[in-house]
Amino acid sequence: MGVGEATFAAMDAFLEEGDEVLVPNPVWLNYIRVPTSLGAKPIDYHLTEKNNYQIDFEELEGKITDRTKMIVIVDPSNPTGGVFSRETLEHLAEIAIKYDLIVLSDEIYEQLTYDGEKHVSIASLPGMKERTIKLSGFSKAYSMTGWRLGYMCAPKEVISACVCVHQYTVTCASSFVQDAGVTALYDCDDDVEAMRQEYQERKNYVVKALNAIEGVTTNDPKGAFYIFVNIKSFGKTSYEMAEYLLEEAKVALVPGSAFDSEGEGYLRISYATGMDELKEACERMKNALDALRKE
Amino acid sequence: MGVGEATFAAMDAFLEEGDEVLVPNPVWLNYIRVPTSLGAKPIDYHLTEKNNYQIDFEELEGKITDRTKMIVIVDPSNPTGGVFSRETLEHLAEIAIKYDLIVLSDEIYEQLTYDGEKHVSIASLPGMKERTIKLSGFSKAYSMTGWRLGYMCAPKEVISACVCVHQYTVTCASSFVQDAGVTALYDCDDDVEAMRQEYQERKNYVVKALNAIEGVTTNDPKGAFYIFVNIKSFGKTSYEMAEYLLEEAKVALVPGSAFDSEGEGYLRISYATGMDELKEACERMKNALDALRKE
Repeated sequence: MGVGEATFAAMDAFLEEGDEVLVPNPVWLNYIRVPTSLGAKPIDYHLTEKNNYQIDFEELEGKITDRTKMIVIVDPSNPTGGVFSRETLEHLAEIAIKYDLIVLSDEIYEQLTYDGEKHVSIASLPGMKERTIKLSGFSKAYSMTGWRLGYMCAPKEVISACVCVHQYTVTCASSFVQDAGVTALYDCDDDVEAMRQEYQERKNYVVKALNAIEGVTTNDPKGAFYIFVNIKSFGKTSYEMAEYLLEEAKVALVPGSAFDSEGEGYLRISYATGMDELKEACERMKNALDALRKE
Repeated sequence: MGVGEATFAAMDAFLEEGDEVLVPNPVWLNYIRVPTSLGAKPIDYHLTEKNNYQIDFEELEGKITDRTKMIVIVDPSNPTGGVFSRETLEHLAEIAIKYDLIVLSDEIYEQLTYDGEKHVSIASLPGMKERTIKLSGFSKAYSMTGWRLGYMCAPKEVISACVCVHQYTVTCASSFVQDAGVTALYDCDDDVEAMRQEYQERKNYVVKALNAIEGVTTNDPKGAFYIFVNIKSFGKTSYEMAEYLLEEAKVALVPGSAFDSEGEGYLRISYATGMDELKEACERMKNALDALRKE
């Protein structure tokens, strides 16, 4: 099953009632809801545009308590497209070791990085293999969305604990989907690279087109297939803006507030669609937003 | 996902710490482990060969307390192949209504009944639709084992509660497997009936062949594709007997003790394999068991 189920298994296996989990903000809300449902406490650390979506370690370290057991990272990030630098990951590794924390590292977008940026798994840093639960899967880089196939890499004892949960929830992924996963891993590197280059071109186009709209800014994301668009200058909530663009431009975007408080003032655009659609969408958004400014 | 995941979702949604769940004995151990993992208490009620695997209602009613919230039934049964009579189900319905209990009804083998016996879903009895969570799936009747597709039928509010759990564990079954399920439901009744008739023949053969072995007895099961074979006369545990037959006859059976205490003294045979293999297996078992008697 996917990264979602692996998250549930890992958290159910390791978190006791009252344990604290450091979770990015903004984030895919699963990482807030799953620990909450298990009686644990998600404590957010902020990833900001100003800080290029890197970790503010002063903030992070200040939030660690006796009950902190786990840090969640999503790298590359959904929804920001941000990629942690090696420096960020090294600093995080230091902290994880210092405070004896497990790092739950969602790397589902690991193959999708751009502009020469390379993904580094925190599990590859010294002392981290022992304390990292790396999650990844096939839905993004291999376009196997909806096949429900992901995996977990972790020390043997961790896997054993997670399998206890896994066998009473999911049992296993569909048998033939597992076979497809093997083919993906062995025979599809060229396809993944071709797709990555395609995403690179789309990203270049969309970032440029968005920044050309008055009142809209965006940093240039280095991973995943999302752009987190700053629309604060319009003075509306991201929910209102998403609704406006849906109705006026017929373009569906996700309001940043759907990814926790730090997402307010942003819209998440996915460029996992064809170039023609993206061009059309950018033009419609420009027209709708220009009209809005003139109101 | 399958019945296993539906069980987890239903129990996670409805059981609080300390709640009691009435669970058959023998049973697929999932029904003991899942409530236990959630802090609830499985309380067993016995299904015995002597009672033709029907419920002993005096025992069952005596085990209901203020904390009892749910009764699990598996009908037709894994591992016994037993099918509850309409009379049993009507009596059970009365009790569920009287004590305001939810019935979690695993009907995964519902299409597979024999000798003219018809499966009745407890949900179809008056007053029971409101309090039954019916689980079924495609792995047995449609031979879609390993596809991981099942379903739950329950009142709308129950489904909503279970979806809350489902979305943070499994998300959904593989998309194209869901399509296959639609085809199975609409276009495969004849195939299911052909397979059922094939199972009927296999059962007739195996029951007769087993009862012809000295020291072995079996009731004539009316459902699923299992025979629960009584091997008590050999004076060994079911685990020892399974091991002996594996080594001496190269026939793999499941020791009844793997299905809780009431299974001790039995072996579960699955006849979900071809007639030639079944004939060969019965002959080998006969030889191995005859040799054992002469020791």
